Amino acid sequence: MKFTVSEIAQMLNGTVVGNDQITINSAAKIEEGLPGCISFLANSKYEPYIYSTLSSAVIVNKDFVPKKDISATLIYVDNAYTAFTILLEEYQKRIAGSKSGVEQPSFIGENSETGENCYRGAFSYIGKNCVIGKNVKIYPQAWLGDGVEVGDYSVIHPGVKIYDNTIIGKNCTIFANTVIGSDGFGFAPQPDGSYKTIPQLGNVIIEDNVSIGSNATIDCATMGSTIIRQGAKIDNLVQIAHNVEIGKNTVIAAQSGVSGSTTVGEQCVIAGQVGLVGHITVANNTKIGAQSGLGKSIKKEGLSLSGSPARDLNEHLRSMALVRRLPELEERLKDLERKQETSDFQ
Amino acid sequence: MKFTVSEIAQMLNGTVVGNDQITINSAAKIEEGLPGCISFLANSKYEPYIYSTLSSAVIVNKDFVPKKDISATLIYVDNAYTAFTILLEEYQKRIAGSKSGVEQPSFIGENSETGENCYRGAFSYIGKNCVIGKNVKIYPQAWLGDGVEVGDYSVIHPGVKIYDNTIIGKNCTIFANTVIGSDGFGFAPQPDGSYKTIPQLGNVIIEDNVSIGSNATIDCATMGSTIIRQGAKIDNLVQIAHNVEIGKNTVIAAQSGVSGSTTVGEQCVIAGQVGLVGHITVANNTKIGAQSGLGKSIKKEGLSLSGSPARDLNEHLRSMALVRRLPELEERLKDLERKQETSDFQ
Amino acid sequence: MKFTVSEIAQMLNGTVVGNDQITINSAAKIEEGLPGCISFLANSKYEPYIYSTLSSAVIVNKDFVPKKDISATLIYVDNAYTAFTILLEEYQKRIAGSKSGVEQPSFIGENSETGENCYRGAFSYIGKNCVIGKNVKIYPQAWLGDGVEVGDYSVIHPGVKIYDNTIIGKNCTIFANTVIGSDGFGFAPQPDGSYKTIPQLGNVIIEDNVSIGSNATIDCATMGSTIIRQGAKIDNLVQIAHNVEIGKNTVIAAQSGVSGSTTVGEQCVIAGQVGLVGHITVANNTKIGAQSGLGKSIKKEGLSLSGSPARDLNEHLRSMALVRRLPELEERLKDLERKQETSDFQ
Repeated sequence: MKFTVSEIAQMLNGTVVGNDQITINSAAKIEEGLPGCISFLANSKYEPYIYSTLSSAVIVNKDFVPKKDISATLIYVDNAYTAFTILLEEYQKRIAGSKSGVEQPSFIGENSETGENCYRGAFSYIGKNCVIGKNVKIYPQAWLGDGVEVGDYSVIHPGVKIYDNTIIGKNCTIFANTVIGSDGFGFAPQPDGSYKTIPQLGNVIIEDNVSIGSNATIDCATMGSTIIRQGAKIDNLVQIAHNVEIGKNTVIAAQSGVSGSTTVGEQCVIAGQVGLVGHITVANNTKIGAQSGLGKSIKKEGLSLSGSPARDLNEHLRSMALVRRLPELEERLKDLERKQETSDFQ
Repeated sequence: MKFTVSEIAQMLNGTVVGNDQITINSAAKIEEGLPGCISFLANSKYEPYIYSTLSSAVIVNKDFVPKKDISATLIYVDNAYTAFTILLEEYQKRIAGSKSGVEQPSFIGENSETGENCYRGAFSYIGKNCVIGKNVKIYPQAWLGDGVEVGDYSVIHPGVKIYDNTIIGKNCTIFANTVIGSDGFGFAPQPDGSYKTIPQLGNVIIEDNVSIGSNATIDCATMGSTIIRQGAKIDNLVQIAHNVEIGKNTVIAAQSGVSGSTTVGEQCVIAGQVGLVGHITVANNTKIGAQSGLGKSIKKEGLSLSGSPARDLNEHLRSMALVRRLPELEERLKDLERKQETSDFQ
Repeated sequence: MKFTVSEIAQMLNGTVVGNDQITINSAAKIEEGLPGCISFLANSKYEPYIYSTLSSAVIVNKDFVPKKDISATLIYVDNAYTAFTILLEEYQKRIAGSKSGVEQPSFIGENSETGENCYRGAFSYIGKNCVIGKNVKIYPQAWLGDGVEVGDYSVIHPGVKIYDNTIIGKNCTIFANTVIGSDGFGFAPQPDGSYKTIPQLGNVIIEDNVSIGSNATIDCATMGSTIIRQGAKIDNLVQIAHNVEIGKNTVIAAQSGVSGSTTVGEQCVIAGQVGLVGHITVANNTKIGAQSGLGKSIKKEGLSLSGSPARDLNEHLRSMALVRRLPELEERLKDLERKQETSDFQ
């Protein structure tokens, strides 16, 4: 996809200084730019790069005053960072927007409907009684069971598997090979040592504007629903167990896991490789550091936690510093013991 | 799927008090029930909910005596919990049982056979020389390589990949996008710093009644077999490396990993995000707490372990309590040092 | 696949003692061999097994002198271990080599080319403008977006998903259901508490001779490229975030994760379930122990690290030993306190 600098300036409501007929075909950081690229300068720390960048154009704040000659064409805007983001979004939208229609072979069951302007990729499978909104993209090799609902503008990437009766809201993105709605891990021990499967009859509800990464797993509820509230962002390889609820705008980084029946509040930030035990409640605005293990409910909002078991971040750091210094502490203890012996002896 | 209360009572060998012609179309916890749902009351802690539940019917123990009016229809049975489980299973069986036949397009290689009443979903792929038992379900987009065997009544969910020569027993369930039998991670360092791939020629054997979650990975053996013994239950995103053996009825929770050539005994319970190093043996009935790291063999049966490195659970808890109290211990040490100095000075 | 001992000896440039017309159809460890198997004896520790093995043939070093009767046919070679590896490779090559041609239905977009002798499995999908080298295998249900390049002799296993503009070198192997090039986890917080998706416009570059396990995830760069350098080996369920660079011949074991914009040097060895924070640099030849968490850059080459937070392995082990002994240290502290009190009192 190609634009002239002039077209971009118009899109961003900006003013051009330099050649506005240059063609832009990619974006790059200002320090890595190549001819044909567009970059931005927002943080003055990066200003030195603007004098040497090979990018063909740079978006700058309207108050930017060059201290030397610049070979790139400049586009002056109110806020360079925001403008750059808008540009990238526009670019991505145009690329993504190009997919629509039905590739063959693909499968759609009885009584399932798709809204206008949908994309159904080759080898995708939609079961019976599904309701697919408008502008939804179902990429190749995705599988939707029976009775699945997907809201307008949501994107189901290649190889995603969505079990029966899952409900997905609007503007959601589910990346490749993620599995939504497979059975929760529930087994009842039997007298002979074997386990009997506890039927998992609930579903998964994903509200609007949720993003879920690749190869993640979100189990259906035993009864009722596993719920991902609106605006939540879940990274690759995350595990969400049965009957969990993830609050609005909560962010969970890669490889973390939330055990069954736990409720995580709104606006929480859970870093990578964290584990939460089952049947606990985590208050809104809780922050949990990487590799932590949370073993009990957090009632107070806004805490920062770390460690396994997780506790107050600062206390954790203090203890960890002392763990590092344990050899020294033992030396001091030995020293006191020696002096004690000497004094006993005297 | 819909039943009348009368039909359900007959299925459970129960006695109805109330309207037995109400239609039931879902199950719910007693505290979350809605009209059309059936719930159960087994634990007297939940008794208050039976007087306010919106569920249309509740299964209760035969000795239950209401203390107030109840609007729901009651079904009296010998054991309410067991009866409810039986009901859910029956429900699930009827749903699951509905799939059979071959959807097109699907692929089956030379010399492969499927037993009676199988389901082969669209876009599923079965290689050459495979033997698929009766009542097996191979969901859409599953892939079976050459020479794979799947026993009667096993279910291979959408997108599962099963490499050549894997043997899967009866009544097994493999959830979506799990990979069975891909190469073990084996590389021989070369003098120039590169690594040469060690050919992985073994297979995976999964015995009867095993359940494996979604997006898990089970590697084939270098030579011989990686073995999952009967009744083992493995959760989502678990990694089982080459030449591992998982014992009968052992349970492994989400995101745990077992390294190459390790043997885990029978009836073990491994919690989430646990790691086991390679080439060790773990005795029967071992319990390992979440996020633990087991670095050596466990010879004695029935131990409870925790921590990284993992050791006796109680010792681990005691040490962790002291880690939390390290700032206090250091204060006490300083205090003694000050007193010591004072006494030296006197 | 079957060979006679005579054919194998010729392949390995070896000398046969015994019946060279026996048919070999499998390989096994010397202690687990069965008739029809070939084994090897390199380490004299295993010598006792050669006198009792049921394997039909054993590859031995040319200086091996039997102390008792051996029923197996022997093949004498310069280096038994190397010869065995060559044999296994040859075996695997012949099996793998059998796949070529195009199975139907499969999908290939406009303007995409495949080199000679490629395999494209049923239900595989190749987008537009892709360049696929010669002898490449694209297994069933794999998906390649638009503008993807795959070098000669690389193998894309079943269900792998490769996003637009990914570049994969020669002789690479990507195992089942791995996802390459899905969006990095980048979201800009908004004043109302919601998050706005930061467009991820970069790609992934995988150099030659890289191996990536099953169900792994490698995110595309925000801008520029996420890069896996030549010869790197990445295990199952590993997460590589956006803009990461993994150095030449670096090995990363299962379930580890590398956060955004981190650069890992050459010849590093990262064990299982390790986490690296974002925006750090790790020097060449660094070794990181299992379940470690690395929170800062490592400048010096060749260090061995462990723990979370990770630090020098030996220091970590010393501290961990003291953590285990904390109850004892507290007792000693109490003891000193008691004596101190007594002496204060005197």
